[in-house]
Amino acid sequence: MTKTVGIIGGTGNIGEGLARRICLGGKFDVIIGSREASKACVAADGVVCELKDRKCTATTCSGTTNEDVCSSDILIISLPFERVQGTIETIGKAAFENKIVITLINPMIRNPKEKYFLPDAPAEGSAALAIRKMLPESTRLIAAFNNVAANKWMMLDEELDYSVAVCGDDEEAKKTVMELVGSVSKLKPLDAGPLAMTKVVEGITPLVITIAMRNGLKDVGVYFK
Amino acid sequence: MTKTVGIIGGTGNIGEGLARRICLGGKFDVIIGSREASKACVAADGVVCELKDRKCTATTCSGTTNEDVCSSDILIISLPFERVQGTIETIGKAAFENKIVITLINPMIRNPKEKYFLPDAPAEGSAALAIRKMLPESTRLIAAFNNVAANKWMMLDEELDYSVAVCGDDEEAKKTVMELVGSVSKLKPLDAGPLAMTKVVEGITPLVITIAMRNGLKDVGVYFK
Repeated sequence: MTKTVGIIGGTGNIGEGLARRICLGGKFDVIIGSREASKACVAADGVVCELKDRKCTATTCSGTTNEDVCSSDILIISLPFERVQGTIETIGKAAFENKIVITLINPMIRNPKEKYFLPDAPAEGSAALAIRKMLPESTRLIAAFNNVAANKWMMLDEELDYSVAVCGDDEEAKKTVMELVGSVSKLKPLDAGPLAMTKVVEGITPLVITIAMRNGLKDVGVYFK
Repeated sequence: MTKTVGIIGGTGNIGEGLARRICLGGKFDVIIGSREASKACVAADGVVCELKDRKCTATTCSGTTNEDVCSSDILIISLPFERVQGTIETIGKAAFENKIVITLINPMIRNPKEKYFLPDAPAEGSAALAIRKMLPESTRLIAAFNNVAANKWMMLDEELDYSVAVCGDDEEAKKTVMELVGSVSKLKPLDAGPLAMTKVVEGITPLVITIAMRNGLKDVGVYFK
């Protein structure tokens, strides 16, 4: 049976792009979640139109509340870091028991005037390590998709051929997430070790934004090879 | 006049590779430094032989003590992080006044059994930020060359075409270092913002080593594009 990916905060820019890209990959169904089910439904309708335009009928996309999205096999938390704790509390921690949960969050300090962004990790060392503490012990938290250039998610005519570092402490869950990553455009999943590696991986996003700003480049991504 | 690059700790593996690569680039002379001048001279002789073999006569390479290497225009500190403080004290801080100094150091914790390396930054957040405090205020400290796959330095028949993130708070010194980076093989220097960005850049080395170990790859490097 086709596995379902639920996107918590799926009506943000990255969330909607992710939904499109995962559906177009054809291997996973998608449920878009939002605080308001109506917003999620509108977003899902947009994805469905796009899928039809592109003659993709392999997968489905629907919209619902963040709470109901938790029936999915895999959850992606696509929220600003500041909103994660509150959203988990609203949904209720029990919904996350034994789940595979993906974080792609990169907390950053912006200094556009001096042309740089820097990581702004919480005391735990990374957003992922902080979110780890907010979730039940049985949750299988994996970090992935962190460094994909944000604007590129929605540019469906452009292939995504970046390397994607996948970090986590549950090897089986990591494998499943690597399959998901590998189903999206030409993304190349790489096992990047334990969740603690997010101390590095989350920082690569402010680094590539800084590199773009300072070297006259656009939508810089990362390749490990 | 050709600028001179002095390598403190130039008889290590990376130091000797750097010396060869910089000389072969043809734009900078090199002085190899070591605790013992005799060791540095032997290393420099090795470079000179290699240059002759490869018909390169554009630049020179000589060997001397770490102290005397400080007459160079640009200094590269190529030492294990634990030895930096002691070496600076032995040489004397005054030798570093107003100098352009490059650090390529990435402190790491090794866990080969579980197949990962993690960053092991000092309290300052990175080796570069700690070294910044060890040097006079007038020293223009720049981080570069951090993520070049270590084994590749000495494989002179292989081109290095990696991206090199260059970080520092002195924009003019950064430009000079970017020229140096750009003179080496096919390395691509990128302005990566302030020295504080080394919190990320130094961590990329344990990340790429981990990626290599876990994904059956060899000598993984990084490309930002």
